[in-house]
Amino acid sequence: MNAKEISPAVIKRLPRYYRYLGELLENEVVRISSKELSERMQVTASQIRQDLNNFGGFGQQGYGYNVQYLYTEIGKILGVNQTNNIIIIGAGNLGQALANYQDFEKRGFAIKAIFDVNPRLIGLTVRGVEIMDIETVGKFVKENDIRIAALTLPKQKAQKAAQELVDLGIKAFWNFASVDLHLPEDIVVENVHLSESLMTLSYRINSMNQQ
Amino acid sequence: MNAKEISPAVIKRLPRYYRYLGELLENEVVRISSKELSERMQVTASQIRQDLNNFGGFGQQGYGYNVQYLYTEIGKILGVNQTNNIIIIGAGNLGQALANYQDFEKRGFAIKAIFDVNPRLIGLTVRGVEIMDIETVGKFVKENDIRIAALTLPKQKAQKAAQELVDLGIKAFWNFASVDLHLPEDIVVENVHLSESLMTLSYRINSMNQQ
Repeated sequence: MNAKEISPAVIKRLPRYYRYLGELLENEVVRISSKELSERMQVTASQIRQDLNNFGGFGQQGYGYNVQYLYTEIGKILGVNQTNNIIIIGAGNLGQALANYQDFEKRGFAIKAIFDVNPRLIGLTVRGVEIMDIETVGKFVKENDIRIAALTLPKQKAQKAAQELVDLGIKAFWNFASVDLHLPEDIVVENVHLSESLMTLSYRINSMNQQ
Repeated sequence: MNAKEISPAVIKRLPRYYRYLGELLENEVVRISSKELSERMQVTASQIRQDLNNFGGFGQQGYGYNVQYLYTEIGKILGVNQTNNIIIIGAGNLGQALANYQDFEKRGFAIKAIFDVNPRLIGLTVRGVEIMDIETVGKFVKENDIRIAALTLPKQKAQKAAQELVDLGIKAFWNFASVDLHLPEDIVVENVHLSESLMTLSYRINSMNQQ
Protein backbone atom coordinates (compact mmCIF):
# COMPACT_ATOMS: atom_id res chain seq x y z
CA MET A 1 0.00 0.00 0.00
CA ASN A 2 1.26 3.43 -0.93
CA ALA A 3 0.87 6.31 1.51
CA LYS A 4 0.00 8.61 -1.38
CA GLU A 5 -3.33 6.83 -1.92
CA ILE A 6 -4.59 7.99 1.48
CA SER A 7 -6.08 11.48 1.74
CA PRO A 8 -4.34 14.09 3.94
CA ALA A 9 -7.42 14.40 6.16
CA VAL A 10 -7.27 10.67 6.95
CA ILE A 11 -3.50 10.81 7.45
CA LYS A 12 -3.99 13.50 10.05
CA ARG A 13 -6.26 11.22 12.07
CA LEU A 14 -4.04 8.12 11.79
CA PRO A 15 -1.80 8.79 14.83
CA ARG A 16 -4.86 8.84 17.05
CA TYR A 17 -6.21 5.60 15.57
CA TYR A 18 -2.78 4.06 15.99
CA ARG A 19 -2.66 5.11 19.64
CA TYR A 20 -6.11 3.64 20.39
CA LEU A 21 -5.40 0.40 18.51
CA GLY A 22 -2.13 0.09 20.46
CA GLU A 23 -4.05 0.44 23.73
CA LEU A 24 -6.50 -2.25 22.60
CA LEU A 25 -3.59 -4.59 21.84
CA GLU A 26 -2.10 -3.92 25.27
CA ASN A 27 -5.44 -4.96 26.71
CA GLU A 28 -5.41 -8.08 24.51
CA VAL A 29 -8.46 -7.04 22.48
CA VAL A 30 -8.39 -9.03 19.21
CA ARG A 31 -11.42 -7.56 17.43
CA ILE A 32 -13.49 -4.44 17.85
CA SER A 33 -16.62 -3.10 16.14
CA SER A 34 -16.71 0.41 14.71
CA LYS A 35 -19.43 1.14 17.28
CA GLU A 36 -17.22 0.19 20.24
CA LEU A 37 -14.20 2.01 18.79
CA SER A 38 -16.42 5.01 18.14
CA GLU A 39 -17.52 5.13 21.78
CA ARG A 40 -13.94 4.94 23.01
CA MET A 41 -12.61 7.54 20.59
CA GLN A 42 -15.65 9.82 20.67
CA VAL A 43 -15.76 9.93 16.88
CA THR A 44 -18.82 8.80 14.89
CA ALA A 45 -18.88 5.14 13.83
CA SER A 46 -19.43 6.21 10.23
CA GLN A 47 -16.29 8.38 10.30
CA ILE A 48 -14.33 5.40 11.61
CA ARG A 49 -15.74 3.06 8.96
CA GLN A 50 -14.94 5.59 6.24
CA ASP A 51 -11.39 6.18 7.48
CA LEU A 52 -10.53 2.55 8.09
CA ASN A 53 -12.00 1.44 4.76
CA ASN A 54 -8.76 2.80 3.33
CA PHE A 55 -7.01 -0.20 4.80
CA GLY A 56 -9.38 -2.98 3.62
CA GLY A 57 -9.30 -6.52 5.01
CA PHE A 58 -11.84 -6.32 7.80
CA GLY A 59 -13.54 -9.69 7.62
CA GLN A 60 -17.30 -10.07 7.58
CA GLN A 61 -19.89 -7.40 8.26
CA GLY A 62 -20.68 -7.17 11.96
CA TYR A 63 -17.59 -9.17 12.85
CA GLY A 64 -15.51 -6.09 13.68
CA TYR A 65 -11.99 -4.97 12.90
CA ASN A 66 -8.92 -7.14 13.35
CA VAL A 67 -7.00 -4.92 15.78
CA GLN A 68 -3.53 -6.33 15.11
CA TYR A 69 -3.96 -6.14 11.34
CA LEU A 70 -5.15 -2.53 11.37
CA TYR A 71 -2.45 -1.54 13.85
CA THR A 72 0.23 -3.04 11.62
CA GLU A 73 -1.12 -1.47 8.41
CA ILE A 74 -1.46 1.98 9.93
CA GLY A 75 2.01 1.59 11.44
CA LYS A 76 3.40 0.95 7.96
CA ILE A 77 1.76 4.09 6.57
CA LEU A 78 3.12 6.13 9.47
CA GLY A 79 6.56 4.59 8.97
CA VAL A 80 6.84 3.56 12.63
CA ASN A 81 7.75 0.01 11.54
CA GLN A 82 11.15 1.30 10.41
CA THR A 83 13.93 2.62 12.61
CA ASN A 84 15.01 6.26 12.25
CA ASN A 85 18.11 7.45 14.07
CA ILE A 86 17.60 10.70 15.93
CA ILE A 87 19.74 13.06 18.00
CA ILE A 88 18.56 15.59 20.58
CA ILE A 89 20.08 19.07 20.51
CA GLY A 90 19.93 20.60 23.99
CA ALA A 91 20.35 18.57 27.20
CA GLY A 92 18.23 20.77 29.47
CA ASN A 93 15.17 19.45 31.27
CA LEU A 94 13.15 19.18 28.08
CA GLY A 95 15.94 17.40 26.17
CA GLN A 96 16.36 14.99 29.05
CA ALA A 97 12.60 14.51 29.29
CA LEU A 98 12.57 13.54 25.61
CA ALA A 99 15.50 11.15 26.11
CA ASN A 100 13.47 9.49 28.85
CA TYR A 101 10.42 9.35 26.63
CA GLN A 102 9.78 5.68 25.93
CA ASP A 103 7.44 6.30 23.01
CA PHE A 104 10.49 7.12 20.88
CA GLU A 105 11.33 3.44 20.45
CA LYS A 106 7.69 2.46 20.04
CA ARG A 107 7.39 4.95 17.18
CA GLY A 108 10.51 3.64 15.40
CA PHE A 109 13.01 6.25 16.59
CA ALA A 110 16.39 5.33 18.10
CA ILE A 111 18.00 8.14 20.13
CA LYS A 112 21.71 8.01 19.37
CA ALA A 113 23.03 10.96 21.38
CA ILE A 114 22.19 14.25 23.07
CA PHE A 115 24.32 17.33 22.35
CA ASP A 116 24.92 20.38 24.50
CA VAL A 117 27.42 23.19 25.06
CA ASN A 118 27.42 22.87 28.86
CA PRO A 119 30.65 21.16 30.04
CA ARG A 120 28.94 20.07 33.28
CA LEU A 121 26.49 17.95 31.30
CA ILE A 122 28.85 16.53 28.67
CA GLY A 123 29.77 12.92 29.43
CA LEU A 124 26.65 12.20 31.49
CA THR A 125 24.12 9.69 30.21
CA VAL A 126 20.32 9.76 30.20
CA ARG A 127 18.73 6.31 30.01
CA GLY A 128 21.96 5.05 28.42
CA VAL A 129 22.19 7.89 25.89
CA GLU A 130 25.37 9.97 26.16
CA ILE A 131 25.38 13.76 26.35
CA MET A 132 28.11 14.86 23.94
CA ASP A 133 29.88 18.11 23.09
CA ILE A 134 27.98 20.03 20.39
CA GLU A 135 31.37 20.63 18.71
CA THR A 136 31.43 16.93 17.74
CA VAL A 137 27.95 16.82 16.18
CA GLY A 138 29.16 17.08 12.57
CA LYS A 139 31.38 14.03 12.81
CA PHE A 140 28.70 12.11 14.74
CA VAL A 141 25.96 12.84 12.18
CA LYS A 142 28.17 11.59 9.34
CA GLU A 143 29.37 8.45 11.08
CA ASN A 144 26.01 7.36 12.51
CA ASP A 145 23.61 7.96 9.62
CA ILE A 146 21.62 10.63 11.48
CA ARG A 147 19.02 12.53 9.51
CA ILE A 148 16.68 13.70 12.27
CA ALA A 149 17.23 16.12 15.16
CA ALA A 150 14.97 17.10 18.04
CA LEU A 151 15.60 20.76 18.93
CA THR A 152 15.17 21.72 22.58
CA LEU A 153 17.15 24.95 22.44
CA PRO A 154 16.25 28.51 23.44
CA LYS A 155 14.45 30.22 20.55
CA GLN A 156 17.34 32.65 20.03
CA LYS A 157 19.68 29.78 19.15
CA ALA A 158 17.34 27.51 17.21
CA GLN A 159 17.45 29.01 13.70
CA LYS A 160 21.25 29.16 13.55
CA ALA A 161 21.61 25.64 14.97
CA ALA A 162 19.02 24.26 12.55
CA GLN A 163 20.74 25.86 9.56
CA GLU A 164 24.09 24.39 10.62
CA LEU A 165 22.52 20.98 11.10
CA VAL A 166 21.00 21.13 7.61
CA ASP A 167 24.48 21.86 6.25
CA LEU A 168 25.69 18.74 8.09
CA GLY A 169 23.02 16.60 6.43
CA ILE A 170 20.04 16.69 8.82
CA LYS A 171 16.80 16.34 6.85
CA ALA A 172 14.10 16.62 9.52
CA PHE A 173 13.50 18.46 12.80
CA TRP A 174 11.22 17.87 15.77
CA ASN A 175 11.25 21.50 16.88
CA PHE A 176 10.39 22.50 20.45
CA ALA A 177 11.93 25.98 20.22
CA SER A 178 9.28 28.70 20.28
CA VAL A 179 10.15 29.96 16.79
CA ASP A 180 9.27 29.11 13.19
CA LEU A 181 12.37 27.78 11.46
CA HIS A 182 13.16 29.10 7.98
CA LEU A 183 14.81 26.22 6.15
CA PRO A 184 14.97 24.83 2.59
CA GLU A 185 11.67 23.42 1.36
CA ASP A 186 12.82 19.81 1.30
CA ILE A 187 13.52 19.86 5.05
CA VAL A 188 10.77 18.40 7.25
CA VAL A 189 9.88 20.43 10.36
CA GLU A 190 7.37 19.18 12.90
CA ASN A 191 6.72 21.85 15.53
CA VAL A 192 5.65 21.46 19.13
CA HIS A 193 4.91 25.06 20.08
CA LEU A 194 4.22 24.85 23.82
CA SER A 195 3.83 28.58 24.06
CA GLU A 196 0.95 28.59 21.54
CA SER A 197 -0.67 25.64 23.25
CA LEU A 198 -0.48 27.52 26.55
CA MET A 199 -2.11 30.60 24.96
CA THR A 200 -4.90 28.45 23.54
CA LEU A 201 -5.43 27.09 27.05
CA SER A 202 -5.48 30.63 28.38
CA TYR A 203 -8.02 31.71 25.75
CA ARG A 204 -10.30 28.78 26.54
CA ILE A 205 -10.16 29.42 30.30
CA ASN A 206 -10.81 33.11 29.66
CA SER A 207 -13.85 32.30 27.48
CA MET A 208 -15.12 29.86 30.10
CA ASN A 209 -14.99 32.62 32.73
CA GLN A 210 -17.14 34.88 30.56
CA GLN A 211 -19.93 32.34 30.22
CA MET B 1 -14.07 43.92 22.91
CA ASN B 2 -15.75 40.58 23.42
CA ALA B 3 -13.95 37.37 22.45
CA LYS B 4 -17.19 36.00 21.06
CA GLU B 5 -17.13 38.51 18.19
CA ILE B 6 -13.98 36.95 16.75
CA SER B 7 -14.38 33.86 14.55
CA PRO B 8 -12.86 30.56 15.72
CA ALA B 9 -10.59 30.43 12.64
CA VAL B 10 -9.04 33.77 13.60
CA ILE B 11 -8.79 32.75 17.26
CA LYS B 12 -6.76 29.72 16.22
CA ARG B 13 -4.20 31.96 14.50
CA LEU B 14 -3.96 34.51 17.33
CA PRO B 15 -1.25 32.77 19.39
CA ARG B 16 1.07 32.87 16.39
CA TYR B 17 0.37 36.59 15.76
CA TYR B 18 0.93 37.22 19.44
CA ARG B 19 4.27 35.43 19.34
CA TYR B 20 5.46 37.40 16.29
CA LEU B 21 4.26 40.73 17.67
CA GLY B 22 6.09 39.94 20.93
CA GLU B 23 9.30 39.32 18.99
CA LEU B 24 8.86 42.64 17.18
CA LEU B 25 8.46 44.41 20.52
CA GLU B 26 11.59 42.72 21.84
CA ASN B 27 13.37 44.12 18.80
CA GLU B 28 11.87 47.56 19.49
CA VAL B 29 9.82 47.65 16.30
CA VAL B 30 7.02 50.21 16.77
CA ARG B 31 5.12 49.85 13.48
CA ILE B 32 5.00 47.19 10.80
CA SER B 33 3.21 46.94 7.46
CA SER B 34 1.10 43.90 6.60
CA LYS B 35 3.61 43.23 3.79
CA GLU B 36 6.58 43.04 6.16
CA LEU B 37 4.66 40.99 8.73
CA SER B 38 3.50 38.72 5.91
CA GLU B 39 7.08 38.06 4.82
CA ARG B 40 8.15 37.23 8.35
CA MET B 41 5.20 34.98 9.10
CA GLN B 42 4.94 33.44 5.65
CA VAL B 43 1.22 34.16 5.50
CA THR B 44 -0.34 36.29 2.74
CA ALA B 45 -0.62 40.01 3.46
CA SER B 46 -4.34 39.88 2.68
CA GLN B 47 -4.87 37.14 5.27
CA ILE B 48 -3.08 39.29 7.83
CA ARG B 49 -5.13 42.39 6.95
CA GLN B 50 -8.33 40.39 7.19
CA ASP B 51 -7.41 38.81 10.54
CA LEU B 52 -6.11 41.98 12.17
CA ASN B 53 -9.07 44.05 10.97
CA ASN B 54 -10.91 42.36 13.83
CA PHE B 55 -8.95 44.57 16.20
CA GLY B 56 -9.38 47.96 14.48
CA GLY B 57 -7.32 51.04 15.32
CA PHE B 58 -4.46 50.79 12.86
CA GLY B 59 -3.89 54.40 11.90
CA GLN B 60 -3.74 55.54 8.29
CA GLN B 61 -3.55 53.38 5.20
CA GLY B 62 0.05 52.54 4.35
CA TYR B 63 1.23 53.62 7.78
CA GLY B 64 1.33 50.09 9.14
CA TYR B 65 0.19 48.45 12.36
CA ASN B 66 0.93 49.78 15.82
CA VAL B 67 2.77 46.75 17.24
CA GLN B 68 2.23 47.50 20.94
CA TYR B 69 -1.48 48.20 20.46
CA LEU B 70 -2.12 45.00 18.53
CA TYR B 71 -0.03 42.96 20.96
CA THR B 72 -2.03 44.29 23.90
CA GLU B 73 -5.42 43.79 22.23
CA ILE B 74 -4.63 40.22 21.15
CA GLY B 75 -3.25 39.55 24.64
CA LYS B 76 -6.60 40.61 26.11
CA ILE B 77 -8.51 38.26 23.82
CA LEU B 78 -6.17 35.41 24.73
CA GLY B 79 -6.50 36.25 28.41
CA VAL B 80 -2.74 36.41 28.94
CA ASN B 81 -3.11 39.83 30.58
CA GLN B 82 -4.66 38.13 33.62
CA THR B 83 -2.90 35.83 36.05
CA ASN B 84 -4.06 32.22 36.34
CA ASN B 85 -2.69 30.05 39.13
CA ILE B 86 -1.53 26.64 37.94
CA ILE B 87 -0.09 23.51 39.52
CA ILE B 88 1.96 20.79 37.84
CA ILE B 89 1.10 17.17 38.59
CA GLY B 90 4.18 14.99 38.10
CA ALA B 91 7.71 16.16 38.97
CA GLY B 92 9.57 14.01 36.46
CA ASN B 93 11.76 15.52 33.75
CA LEU B 94 8.81 16.88 31.82
CA GLY B 95 7.17 18.40 34.91
CA GLN B 96 10.48 20.00 35.85
CA ALA B 97 11.00 21.20 32.28
CA LEU B 98 7.60 22.92 32.45
CA ALA B 99 8.43 24.48 35.82
CA ASN B 100 11.56 25.90 34.21
CA TYR B 101 9.57 27.15 31.25
CA GLN B 102 9.68 30.93 31.40
CA ASP B 103 6.81 31.43 28.96
CA PHE B 104 4.43 30.48 31.76
CA GLU B 105 4.72 33.90 33.37
CA LYS B 106 4.71 35.67 30.01
CA ARG B 107 1.41 33.98 29.20
CA GLY B 108 -0.19 34.96 32.50
CA PHE B 109 0.28 31.70 34.41
CA ALA B 110 1.78 31.55 37.90
CA ILE B 111 3.09 28.11 38.90
CA LYS B 112 2.19 27.63 42.53
CA ALA B 113 3.48 24.10 43.21
CA ILE B 114 4.48 20.77 41.69
CA PHE B 115 3.03 17.54 43.10
CA ASP B 116 4.48 14.05 43.05
CA VAL B 117 4.31 10.72 44.88
CA ASN B 118 8.09 10.22 44.97
CA PRO B 119 9.45 10.92 48.49
CA ARG B 120 12.90 11.61 47.06
CA LEU B 121 11.54 14.58 45.12
CA ILE B 122 9.15 16.01 47.72
CA GLY B 123 10.59 19.11 49.39
CA LEU B 124 12.93 19.97 46.50
CA THR B 125 12.33 23.18 44.57
CA VAL B 126 12.49 23.92 40.85
CA ARG B 127 13.10 27.60 40.06
CA GLY B 128 11.66 28.43 43.47
CA VAL B 129 8.58 26.23 43.06
CA GLU B 130 8.25 23.52 45.71
CA ILE B 131 7.63 19.87 44.91
CA MET B 132 4.91 18.76 47.34
CA ASP B 133 3.32 15.47 48.37
CA ILE B 134 0.38 14.62 46.11
CA GLU B 135 -1.55 13.69 49.25
CA THR B 136 -1.73 17.40 50.11
CA VAL B 137 -3.05 18.58 46.73
CA GLY B 138 -6.69 18.87 47.82
CA LYS B 139 -5.92 21.24 50.65
CA PHE B 140 -3.53 23.22 48.46
CA VAL B 141 -6.04 23.65 45.63
CA LYS B 142 -8.67 24.98 48.03
CA GLU B 143 -6.37 27.36 49.89
CA ASN B 144 -4.60 28.81 46.84
CA ASP B 145 -7.42 29.35 44.35
CA ILE B 146 -6.06 26.83 41.86
CA ARG B 147 -8.26 25.99 38.90
CA ILE B 148 -5.68 24.76 36.37
CA ALA B 149 -3.39 21.72 36.41
CA ALA B 150 -0.66 20.63 34.00
CA LEU B 151 -0.59 16.83 33.84
CA THR B 152 2.79 15.22 33.23
CA LEU B 153 1.89 11.75 34.47
CA PRO B 154 2.19 8.33 32.84
CA LYS B 155 -0.89 7.71 30.69
CA GLN B 156 -2.06 4.89 32.99
CA LYS B 157 -2.43 7.32 35.88
CA ALA B 158 -3.75 10.40 34.07
CA GLN B 159 -7.49 9.69 33.85
CA LYS B 160 -7.84 8.78 37.53
CA ALA B 161 -5.76 11.76 38.64
CA ALA B 162 -7.72 14.14 36.39
CA GLN B 163 -11.04 12.88 37.73
CA GLU B 164 -9.87 13.35 41.31
CA LEU B 165 -8.61 16.85 40.53
CA VAL B 166 -11.99 17.76 38.99
CA ASP B 167 -13.63 16.63 42.22
CA LEU B 168 -11.25 18.96 44.08
CA GLY B 169 -12.30 21.92 41.95
CA ILE B 170 -9.84 21.94 39.01
CA LYS B 171 -11.53 23.38 35.90
CA ALA B 172 -8.82 23.10 33.22
CA PHE B 173 -5.98 20.76 32.25
CA TRP B 174 -2.85 21.16 30.15
CA ASN B 175 -2.53 17.46 29.43
CA PHE B 176 0.81 15.92 28.38
CA ALA B 177 -0.21 12.33 29.14
CA SER B 178 -0.61 10.28 25.97
CA VAL B 179 -4.29 9.63 26.54
CA ASP B 180 -7.60 11.40 25.84
CA LEU B 181 -9.19 12.38 29.14
CA HIS B 182 -12.89 11.71 29.61
CA LEU B 183 -14.17 14.50 31.84
CA PRO B 184 -17.35 16.56 32.29
CA GLU B 185 -18.10 18.86 29.35
CA ASP B 186 -17.46 22.08 31.26
CA ILE B 187 -13.85 21.09 31.95
CA VAL B 188 -11.26 22.57 29.57
CA VAL B 189 -8.60 20.15 28.28
CA GLU B 190 -5.74 21.33 26.09
CA ASN B 191 -3.69 18.35 24.92
CA VAL B 192 -0.03 18.17 23.95
CA HIS B 193 0.17 14.69 22.47
CA LEU B 194 3.90 14.24 21.86
CA SER B 195 3.38 10.70 20.69
CA GLU B 196 1.08 11.84 17.87
CA SER B 197 3.44 14.62 16.90
CA LEU B 198 6.25 12.06 16.71
CA MET B 199 4.15 9.82 14.45
CA THR B 200 3.35 12.75 12.18
CA LEU B 201 7.09 13.40 11.96
CA SER B 202 7.65 9.74 11.16
CA TYR B 203 4.99 9.82 8.45
CA ARG B 204 6.47 12.90 6.83
CA ILE B 205 10.01 11.45 6.86
CA ASN B 206 8.66 8.21 5.44
CA SER B 207 6.84 10.08 2.63
CA MET B 208 9.96 12.11 1.93
CA ASN B 209 11.95 8.89 1.47
CA GLN B 210 9.49 7.65 -1.13
CA GLN B 211 9.83 10.71 -3.33
